[in-house]
Amino acid sequence: MKPNDLQPGQWTLARRAEKMNPSVIREILKVTERPGIISFAGGLPSPKTFPVEAFAQACAKVLRDDGQGALQYAASEGHGPLREMVAAGLPWQVDPADVLITTGSQQGLDLVAKILIDSGSRILVETPTYLGALQAFMPMEPEVVSVASDDEGIDVEDLARKAGAGGNGNARFLYVLPNFQNPTGRTMSEARRAALSQRAAAIGLPLIEDNPYGDLWFDQPPPPPLSARNPQGCVYLGSFSKVLAPGLRLGFLVAPKSLYPKLLQAKQAADLHSPSFNQRMVAEVMKDGFLGRHVPTIRALYKSQRDAMLAALGREMADLDVQWNSPDGGMFLWARLPRGVDAVELLPRAVDKGVAFVPGAAFFAGQADTRTVRLSFVTASVEQIDTGIAALAAAIRETPTRRN
Amino acid sequence: MKPNDLQPGQWTLARRAEKMNPSVIREILKVTERPGIISFAGGLPSPKTFPVEAFAQACAKVLRDDGQGALQYAASEGHGPLREMVAAGLPWQVDPADVLITTGSQQGLDLVAKILIDSGSRILVETPTYLGALQAFMPMEPEVVSVASDDEGIDVEDLARKAGAGGNGNARFLYVLPNFQNPTGRTMSEARRAALSQRAAAIGLPLIEDNPYGDLWFDQPPPPPLSARNPQGCVYLGSFSKVLAPGLRLGFLVAPKSLYPKLLQAKQAADLHSPSFNQRMVAEVMKDGFLGRHVPTIRALYKSQRDAMLAALGREMADLDVQWNSPDGGMFLWARLPRGVDAVELLPRAVDKGVAFVPGAAFFAGQADTRTVRLSFVTASVEQIDTGIAALAAAIRETPTRRN
Repeated sequence: MKPNDLQPGQWTLARRAEKMNPSVIREILKVTERPGIISFAGGLPSPKTFPVEAFAQACAKVLRDDGQGALQYAASEGHGPLREMVAAGLPWQVDPADVLITTGSQQGLDLVAKILIDSGSRILVETPTYLGALQAFMPMEPEVVSVASDDEGIDVEDLARKAGAGGNGNARFLYVLPNFQNPTGRTMSEARRAALSQRAAAIGLPLIEDNPYGDLWFDQPPPPPLSARNPQGCVYLGSFSKVLAPGLRLGFLVAPKSLYPKLLQAKQAADLHSPSFNQRMVAEVMKDGFLGRHVPTIRALYKSQRDAMLAALGREMADLDVQWNSPDGGMFLWARLPRGVDAVELLPRAVDKGVAFVPGAAFFAGQADTRTVRLSFVTASVEQIDTGIAALAAAIRETPTRRN
Repeated sequence: MKPNDLQPGQWTLARRAEKMNPSVIREILKVTERPGIISFAGGLPSPKTFPVEAFAQACAKVLRDDGQGALQYAASEGHGPLREMVAAGLPWQVDPADVLITTGSQQGLDLVAKILIDSGSRILVETPTYLGALQAFMPMEPEVVSVASDDEGIDVEDLARKAGAGGNGNARFLYVLPNFQNPTGRTMSEARRAALSQRAAAIGLPLIEDNPYGDLWFDQPPPPPLSARNPQGCVYLGSFSKVLAPGLRLGFLVAPKSLYPKLLQAKQAADLHSPSFNQRMVAEVMKDGFLGRHVPTIRALYKSQRDAMLAALGREMADLDVQWNSPDGGMFLWARLPRGVDAVELLPRAVDKGVAFVPGAAFFAGQADTRTVRLSFVTASVEQIDTGIAALAAAIRETPTRRN
């Protein structure tokens, strides 16, 4: 197929444009915007957790103290005091000079893709994996290989088989989201982390560790990050979207010194720098240990919402062959429908009954498990969770099963 | 050269990472941060023009009226009311649905590069051209071809020769900055725009029109944009950085309907969306015709600064074989040093005398004119302009000329 078959007129699209597709989730979210739909689909933090008043005070202060400075062009690396706070907040020794502030952690994925992926490069992902990461990687035309994964995370033996035997045929990296993963909500166990870290170092496989949800634990913190175990072998991605607010579009990455200059150059070319005003505002909000007081309130809220969803599932799905997990933190729960029920086919029936979710198939880089669904428990209220799960159970009950 | 020769450890860089280089200008700017240096180097708008008080009021109102909404994830296309204001403010019929809000217009360049450039694709640029555009394009590995240009803009005959004869060997686009160009400050004449638009349409050559400075005219507006003449053949890039403030990182693009979906998908993959809080803040500031009152004050300030620089050049350089132009708007003036004086060699001498500039060679995609310099007249005060130009003249006088 010639690229210019794709478009009318004189525009010739790049090959990589063919690899870009509309986000399935975005299409689903459009449906869920209909009035009256209870949505377990979106990955939206609860707006109740946004510290609006703290932001209002910080905005006013930043503009009053040095408005002109806050509104001027700024360093591509990010605002110095914010980089220091990020480094100080991480559970291993991090040099603030290794921190790059990004326009959301999504941009971290884009920058990593640009500097590490050639057309045809093999990259490894979990089964299933975060859809937004696939969207960031695909334009650089990698070969995406799905590594077998279970409730504790990556299967290390399968990883070693698929990482390659050395040289340029080697996988460029494994992308992994160890804490309260999107989409499954699962957490990689300590034993699995230790094994993965050791094996990856032994075979020279770099890790891209994405940790947007790590602070949102319910009863106890997750085990230490992979990056803490081998900082030179990992790029670590973090976000302010889940502990403060996503609408500011601020995240960060921590990179080995050997990679940082290239990530920085890619950052300059991408958007010069992340909004300096927003960075100063977040630094102002965070400066007196605000997160230490604020994040526990998010944990408590999300835990109560998870509990409500678990209770509703137990109540409504008791007579159905539906399985689900019990995440230890984060925003998502992963469920598996009865044999013969396809989540994509279930969705319109569920929407008819007033409830939406994301079919799990969207998150598989390889062969999809079409019976899986991702349920967000943080956006809907407890009352809506009760109603929505009952509606979902009714939709499942009415769906004819297929033999296959 | 194997990519993994480049880095220690197990990281293998993508080929495109080799094409990324530290910004020459950023390195120069580091020098200019020394106390006491008068800088004509940076492309920084005068912070005096930032409407700090209007932003403070807008922040407070946005957070008070719908703080939770302003801080939540939002549509990748951008904030609806802001897209409508952008469309209404452009001098041709623009459907707000064709407007994409970007994280600065630098991101517009990154998105265009991603969807239109394959490795080896020919793209055409002016001589000289905006360095930031080259930085955005290079990671996608184009063949960059410099088209002959004079004081009125692109040489249309040279363009036609270099655009290719049809098929996939054709240039993917011409990147052009018609108004008060960075770096030269020149403006494309009406006759040249008409000829370029007609010729580009005839040979099927798409145009990427970058217009960050168009509103900053001094005596009369520039001729209508190229995009107004052939909207289906152009992507138009605009910015709020020069009329409001760069620290918010907001720009926009207007694209033909055939391209928009791919640009939107690239945008989603790059950073999900531009900061929703900032978009609402800017929409709030702009809503009652603010720019109509505010931008004339920027024009008046920058015009007085240009006049100060022209007067200082006339006064200080009278006995030197230095040439310069007189820009009709924008932020930059372009000068040419005496025969045998190389701008890169002049720079450290000038810095020793307390003044900095950007050597023009940084802006040439092909053979550079090493005698050229870019002088920004908007960041320094009139007094600093007088002192700085005198210092620059002294540095030139003391530089031994080379025969070559």
